[in-house]
Amino acid sequence: MEKLYVIKIGGNIVDNPELLTLCLTAFSKLKGQAILVHGGGKLATQMATSMGVEQTMLEGRRVTDAETLKIVTMVYAGYINKNIVAQLQGLGVNAMGLTGADGNLISAHKRTAAAIDYGFVGDVDAVNKNLINKLLGDGIKLVIAPITHNGDGQLLNTNADTIAQSIATGMARDYEVHLIYGFEREGVLSDVNDPSSVIAFIDRPAYGTLKDQKVIFEGMIPKIDNAYLALEGGVQSVIIGKAEKMNELINGTAGTTIKI
Amino acid sequence: MEKLYVIKIGGNIVDNPELLTLCLTAFSKLKGQAILVHGGGKLATQMATSMGVEQTMLEGRRVTDAETLKIVTMVYAGYINKNIVAQLQGLGVNAMGLTGADGNLISAHKRTAAAIDYGFVGDVDAVNKNLINKLLGDGIKLVIAPITHNGDGQLLNTNADTIAQSIATGMARDYEVHLIYGFEREGVLSDVNDPSSVIAFIDRPAYGTLKDQKVIFEGMIPKIDNAYLALEGGVQSVIIGKAEKMNELINGTAGTTIKI
Repeated sequence: MEKLYVIKIGGNIVDNPELLTLCLTAFSKLKGQAILVHGGGKLATQMATSMGVEQTMLEGRRVTDAETLKIVTMVYAGYINKNIVAQLQGLGVNAMGLTGADGNLISAHKRTAAAIDYGFVGDVDAVNKNLINKLLGDGIKLVIAPITHNGDGQLLNTNADTIAQSIATGMARDYEVHLIYGFEREGVLSDVNDPSSVIAFIDRPAYGTLKDQKVIFEGMIPKIDNAYLALEGGVQSVIIGKAEKMNELINGTAGTTIKI
Repeated sequence: MEKLYVIKIGGNIVDNPELLTLCLTAFSKLKGQAILVHGGGKLATQMATSMGVEQTMLEGRRVTDAETLKIVTMVYAGYINKNIVAQLQGLGVNAMGLTGADGNLISAHKRTAAAIDYGFVGDVDAVNKNLINKLLGDGIKLVIAPITHNGDGQLLNTNADTIAQSIATGMARDYEVHLIYGFEREGVLSDVNDPSSVIAFIDRPAYGTLKDQKVIFEGMIPKIDNAYLALEGGVQSVIIGKAEKMNELINGTAGTTIKI
């Protein structure tokens, strides 16, 4: 089967122009099919502040009210997505930027069952793999913003890690899919203050132990949970590491590999 | 040849949610291939004001400095484009929103020769008709934001009327193209205060006379100049009229038809 790299880059990369350029340069050198999913970064919060839109955080998560949805749609689907696409075009990559609404790429529903109301936040229902297959087949590299829709006219703010996992899983029957979570650190670290303490492999028993020891905590837990969802869904490998070392992450010479 | 409708809707439509919904509902009922090009509206100016970004206007046109480019990219390619796409999806139309950077849809160069420096403003060089053909062939209706790129990483603010004309002309060999400029008035009016004074047909000699008489003036002149560029480029018909009367405009029962 043909290889497909689904690569997620986080907000810290998006916020840093030099890091983003390094990362996109690495992306431009990838052989094989590739989809880039980007996070949001701090710009949406800065915009909200400068526009006087108050941001409510509940348990570390942004509540997406109507005004905040407007801002994240502008920042994620507009500014960040289109600047990444233009930069990739400049690097010789025929990139196309899409949200989940475009071509009904990712349909979702508004999260309602949760104890906390996070507002216009979407949980993914389906990935349009026919559209992805066609666009990849036409030599296009996709750049996905973390916005989906409910099919009834409503855009929804959606976690970028989850989008990357959903796309990777959705394409796993048609491609040998490698899911890469690129962020600002070298990988999962046994000592968060020591970049050289990368844990090369984590399997299920190790994951349990590392959680118990609080070596893995907070934001890393949903990331690794997503990794396991992807692996259980047929994704070939999941690697977490420094975004600009994309080629080393793929070659297995950097980052943390998550195994079943 | 198959029919293709290239429909441009202006800022006044985009600014008015009820009008926009009427217009998108009409769009959703169109038979045949269709591309929607949308303008910007007042939201970019409001955003700039609320963010404290000063707007310079020269001869009635916005100067696009780096901060303004950021804002128009957010508003046009993000907020407006994605809300139109989501609404169309809700109306059963498989819409996909793109800028000129996406898939290298529209390449442009920064305007430099002009006496006035308008900043990051693009003049269109080429339309990627292969991409448009493929997407239309896949049953996708395109929604185009008035942002292009120079192929070297730079996004450019670009006039939506010109984009509509460039796309219409670019597709004229492959389709019977009908270009429709939808705006807030019934058409070209002989008396600007009387909506019933629509001029049904304008040909070249009439255009000259109407300009001399100042019946046609200001913003209408570049619109009609664009219409002639399109007609000379092989476009079948150009019609100007009320955006929400799209179906009547197509049937020839409303609006102004521009002829060679």
